[in-house]
Amino acid sequence: MKIVDTYREDFIRFLNKKIQVKEPINLYEPIHYILQLGGKRLRPVLTLVTCNIFGGNEMDAYDAALAVEVFHNFTLVHDDIMDSAPVRRGKVTVHKKWDVNTGILSGDAMLTLAYQCFENYDPIIFKKLVKLFSKTSLQVCEGQQLDIDFETRNNVSIAEYLKMISFKTAVLLAAAMKMGAIIANAKEEEAEKVYNFGLNLGIAFQLQDDYLDTFGDAELFGKQIGGDISENKKTFLYLKALEISNVKDKENLYTLYNANQKGKNKISEVTGIFERNNIPEITVKEIESYTSRAFEILESLSLNVKKKEILKSFGLELMKRRM
Amino acid sequence: MKIVDTYREDFIRFLNKKIQVKEPINLYEPIHYILQLGGKRLRPVLTLVTCNIFGGNEMDAYDAALAVEVFHNFTLVHDDIMDSAPVRRGKVTVHKKWDVNTGILSGDAMLTLAYQCFENYDPIIFKKLVKLFSKTSLQVCEGQQLDIDFETRNNVSIAEYLKMISFKTAVLLAAAMKMGAIIANAKEEEAEKVYNFGLNLGIAFQLQDDYLDTFGDAELFGKQIGGDISENKKTFLYLKALEISNVKDKENLYTLYNANQKGKNKISEVTGIFERNNIPEITVKEIESYTSRAFEILESLSLNVKKKEILKSFGLELMKRRM
Repeated sequence: MKIVDTYREDFIRFLNKKIQVKEPINLYEPIHYILQLGGKRLRPVLTLVTCNIFGGNEMDAYDAALAVEVFHNFTLVHDDIMDSAPVRRGKVTVHKKWDVNTGILSGDAMLTLAYQCFENYDPIIFKKLVKLFSKTSLQVCEGQQLDIDFETRNNVSIAEYLKMISFKTAVLLAAAMKMGAIIANAKEEEAEKVYNFGLNLGIAFQLQDDYLDTFGDAELFGKQIGGDISENKKTFLYLKALEISNVKDKENLYTLYNANQKGKNKISEVTGIFERNNIPEITVKEIESYTSRAFEILESLSLNVKKKEILKSFGLELMKRRM
Repeated sequence: MKIVDTYREDFIRFLNKKIQVKEPINLYEPIHYILQLGGKRLRPVLTLVTCNIFGGNEMDAYDAALAVEVFHNFTLVHDDIMDSAPVRRGKVTVHKKWDVNTGILSGDAMLTLAYQCFENYDPIIFKKLVKLFSKTSLQVCEGQQLDIDFETRNNVSIAEYLKMISFKTAVLLAAAMKMGAIIANAKEEEAEKVYNFGLNLGIAFQLQDDYLDTFGDAELFGKQIGGDISENKKTFLYLKALEISNVKDKENLYTLYNANQKGKNKISEVTGIFERNNIPEITVKEIESYTSRAFEILESLSLNVKKKEILKSFGLELMKRRM
């Protein structure tokens, strides 16, 4: 069994062959640019690994893996416009390097190109993959909308938040894996289990992101600690604190998040509120709960122990990276 | 055989049933809004009529017709952002009524929703339709990019211009018709002929638009005459004039288009240059050439005379509307 790095390298070779600049240059150059910016290529690797695990031919999974990666990068281009983000993966974003219109149009072309990646599959598989892909794409749009809506809402529930991160992040991981299973002709119930494995792992991963943004090690995390607090982001930590803290802490949190202040003082005050309300422990428990749900689902798969171990080690590697 | 108005009414009834506002409201309300703004519903009607002509069950064509209409409206939402257009069909545009981010995200969701419209078709037909749809969508993106590129280029050839309007406008008319033929299980070569009929008619239609914008009757045309000249749009008229006029007229045209002046003086001066270079006659000939090519292709279809007559009357109605 290949290691992750080999999958990644093989995938990048495939991507470089497939994604080339052509006319009109101003449409395809930004597409080439964003797809060459790097990133962990986590999603396409998951498609390849899952296909392999279910006894499929890995070569058959590259097209679907590319669809997933192109789609993911399409969402980055459009999200960066919506967030007015100047930097992505240490490089200038598409709409800053070119302009907003270029970002919009290249993104639209990328969504279409992602669909075209499936055209080598025979009609039965093609329809299954495209249906799953469309469902996922629409959920990602809905997740992004919920995320935007939450910015101006003061009554977001934990359940709503979990739905948002599930749609915005986890469903694409889940779909990437299920596509591998579909291509390998796995039984529908097995493919669905793999989907739910990816979904739970994806939610755990996103919750971990929330945790690390406040309680992580800046160097390991790779981002400034406290960024979410500075930007008044309604993370799991914040929403949980609002749910369980006393009236005074609740008022403090509201004030700190609405006063539009920044800086270390705010970060340490909010972190203090989180700590005295056991939010770190509660969050870690929630992460562990989703992770173990994922591994329970994995256990129930009709695969031999060795193959389950491979998927499990993928999951563990994903989750322990930075904690 | 039903008349166009009946097709349109039946289609609108179908659309109203299918496109409803749901959660998240801020994503789906703009989609509902743009799809209710009206318009001629020309493309979906073409899908229904073509399916009918080829002996298919019209009921089977509604889903594809809706895909085409949703896609067309997606391009309107994103194009209006790119053009900073405040008004569409006499109503405020999506990004003005809401904001640019809402326009981007709702548009993305609409492109996905358009793909989902095909999911009722069996896998063989599904794949044929989705492939044609993706090819068309990418060409429309390329056409939009070419249109943007031409704004800042001074050496656009007539051939490039025809490719641009073909991609930006005609391929969707052509695909709308071919989808009807595919659903009716027409032979591939017949479906391809219908596609080329639609393509040539679409180019003729767009050239007619160029002509009418300068030489039309304001009341019949429904728009201010001379708008293209005011906005320095490189239409067929302008590019043809640059190609065939003498050095002095060429210089005049360049100066008028680059001085950034507006108003009646500019319009009448440019119109004068067009007239003394026979541009109206040349353009009408070009329109007639594409129209007759369309009708020649129509003649070569293996359909009975009555059915050809129906398609021909559609084409004639489309072209004579305003001339």
